[in-house]
Amino acid sequence: MIDSNDFNSYFRYKDGVLHCEDVSIETIAKKVGTPFYLYSKKAIIDKINEYKEAFKDYPTIICYAAKANSNLSILKIFQENDIGCDIVSGGELYKAKKAGIPSNKIVYAGVGKTDFEIEFAIRENILSFNVESYQEIEVINSIAEKVGKVARISIRVNPDVDPKTHPYISTGMKKSKFGIDIDEALNIYKKAMQFKNIEIIGVHCHIGSQIMSISPYIEAVSKVAELVDKLKKEGIELKYFDIGGGIGIKYKITDEPPNIKDFANAIIPIVKQTGLNLIIEPGRSLIGEAGALITKVLFLKDKKEKHFVIVDSGMNDLVRPSIYDAYHHIMAVKIKDKTIKADIVGPICESGDFLGIDREICQVERGDLVAVMSAGAYGASMSSNYNVRPRALEVLVDNNNFKIIREREDYNYLIKLEEEVIQ
Amino acid sequence: MIDSNDFNSYFRYKDGVLHCEDVSIETIAKKVGTPFYLYSKKAIIDKINEYKEAFKDYPTIICYAAKANSNLSILKIFQENDIGCDIVSGGELYKAKKAGIPSNKIVYAGVGKTDFEIEFAIRENILSFNVESYQEIEVINSIAEKVGKVARISIRVNPDVDPKTHPYISTGMKKSKFGIDIDEALNIYKKAMQFKNIEIIGVHCHIGSQIMSISPYIEAVSKVAELVDKLKKEGIELKYFDIGGGIGIKYKITDEPPNIKDFANAIIPIVKQTGLNLIIEPGRSLIGEAGALITKVLFLKDKKEKHFVIVDSGMNDLVRPSIYDAYHHIMAVKIKDKTIKADIVGPICESGDFLGIDREICQVERGDLVAVMSAGAYGASMSSNYNVRPRALEVLVDNNNFKIIREREDYNYLIKLEEEVIQ
Repeated sequence: MIDSNDFNSYFRYKDGVLHCEDVSIETIAKKVGTPFYLYSKKAIIDKINEYKEAFKDYPTIICYAAKANSNLSILKIFQENDIGCDIVSGGELYKAKKAGIPSNKIVYAGVGKTDFEIEFAIRENILSFNVESYQEIEVINSIAEKVGKVARISIRVNPDVDPKTHPYISTGMKKSKFGIDIDEALNIYKKAMQFKNIEIIGVHCHIGSQIMSISPYIEAVSKVAELVDKLKKEGIELKYFDIGGGIGIKYKITDEPPNIKDFANAIIPIVKQTGLNLIIEPGRSLIGEAGALITKVLFLKDKKEKHFVIVDSGMNDLVRPSIYDAYHHIMAVKIKDKTIKADIVGPICESGDFLGIDREICQVERGDLVAVMSAGAYGASMSSNYNVRPRALEVLVDNNNFKIIREREDYNYLIKLEEEVIQ
Repeated sequence: MIDSNDFNSYFRYKDGVLHCEDVSIETIAKKVGTPFYLYSKKAIIDKINEYKEAFKDYPTIICYAAKANSNLSILKIFQENDIGCDIVSGGELYKAKKAGIPSNKIVYAGVGKTDFEIEFAIRENILSFNVESYQEIEVINSIAEKVGKVARISIRVNPDVDPKTHPYISTGMKKSKFGIDIDEALNIYKKAMQFKNIEIIGVHCHIGSQIMSISPYIEAVSKVAELVDKLKKEGIELKYFDIGGGIGIKYKITDEPPNIKDFANAIIPIVKQTGLNLIIEPGRSLIGEAGALITKVLFLKDKKEKHFVIVDSGMNDLVRPSIYDAYHHIMAVKIKDKTIKADIVGPICESGDFLGIDREICQVERGDLVAVMSAGAYGASMSSNYNVRPRALEVLVDNNNFKIIREREDYNYLIKLEEEVIQ
């Protein structure tokens, strides 16, 4: 038996059927149809508490990186548990505020903030803009001046550390578009001091995503701590040391992501020397393993060279396999004695539309369900309507209850913005 | 001067400013904001006429592959010019019907058709299901029986031809999920003859996408023509020979895609020998070069190792550079004497969010516009709301007029399906 309870303790087989917490996934599918994203509330809250416990002895603001999953009901879980928000757009700010996240726990990163977005965030009085270029500081200052406010900023520095992850999600190296090179940062800080409508409150770094070892963090945070010292000597006193996010999760059964307590124990002593308060921006590690994509088998196809399990969800719902060649563990929802080895592929008309290649799972038939695991982060948030496919709805399980937290798009919804203006 | 009128005759500089047909792109941007997709109606119609002219001497149904761009107003242009539609989902069928495309010009491909979609297409009485597996034929038959109709099908065969394109968009090889292997097809045709609610009307093949030479088509169509002969000898008479689509377009200034007339002249004699009517499914080649993505420069950023032009559109609007490492020619909308070499990158928080790497374009400043060319196909249709970004609106130019053909999403629209069910 290939599928087992070893992968994820919130998604376990009971009487041969995969459950999320205490709810049978078959029961949910009967009610809401397929495909759907499924999240365990307990998995999210347990992970929040793991972070809180790990950082409890040091003044730390935990800002959830909303880009991982910005569903309003998910954001509300973070809000109810006193977690702040790391945003990257006006849209994310809008959702964070809708979910009730207080502005003094919101930090705003990203290389391409528009004037509209900057003004929106200034008016909402967020804790900090994590600025990515000198020109951005000038623009924030002029917009703050226009609206008669002072904008708080941290400067994102680029510590040139290799996080050893996929190049697309490695962000802290010299050739990256992100941040200001650490050797130029002192100069930028000095220049930024001149602006009347800017208050410099911190330093920010973020080295990448899905990072499986603590050592690149130690290297990056140490480099930035040296910068903080230099700034102090120049009379530039900061309040916050934002070390970003990027802690990896378990996608493969053999993956061993860093323990959060170990991470905290390695980082806190370095930050402590600077005397600054800590900001951390976990995203994937808070929500990734809490979610799965549930999809139904449409057809089985045996070719001489390959077997295929064709399911009703594909790269429009979960683009990570296509875009990053990412691996997601896949389990049959119903345990069976026999297994098959097959490519699990979607309905999209591209060969790049696959969920898993050469996977061994319990023998599935037409109509059976499969669960694509660790899909809570960068799943729904990256989904599209490619091939005019309605996006997967989203379901939240809480003990023995489940509720839809995003409705399924219907065809009328998909065409609305085009139909109103059809020529 | 690097940017010139050599790239695309529908997007030309007049008085130093890039125009689409007779409309200044700066004028459009002032009216609708950025980013936006921009299409030339004349470019689409000229291409339609090129296809019609090339195939005029042979009975041919041209079915536009809606997955390339399914905007309703775009589909309506095809409908008004008597073009049919190649669809891959119920959503595309819904849009094709909304645009007025007659059912007897609609063919439906794709490995993962749901029961709902199959029933919808049977009730709409489409010309043909292009079926991809034996099990699919069984399912179509049983649904057709249930609704008391006969469904017309063609079998998609896999000629095992290498189209020498990106592996993700190469679909006709043996390890592909698509089609039925050509050496098994005879057997499947015979078995399919048994079904009471199925009428077999044709054969279908599709070898891939963005194909830059005619020879793989000749190879594939010749192989399938041999199959048609074998079928005839077995008493299986077909009506349609659907050779799919996949003709490439000009993305780089040096690209030389196949001439449509040459393509027709190579293919028609082979199909003629079978006596079948022809179906072709061009998508990208009808719409790709007719569109551009227009985006505004937010920031310039000079790092020691790199220069960056940060624009207000990224991988959520145009994912092709990220997913296929695709090249799109990029032009500054305003001609200047000086040029710069830079990465043109978007606002999304991933290093994979780029539109072009190491590009030389006219010197742009904050607020200037750039045009990402040949973005009419697989641009808007693959776009997402990643980072909670509203998707680019879409504009159609007709001579000296322009009209919005898809409105911009606002934040309320983005959260609607979540807000109604917030927990």
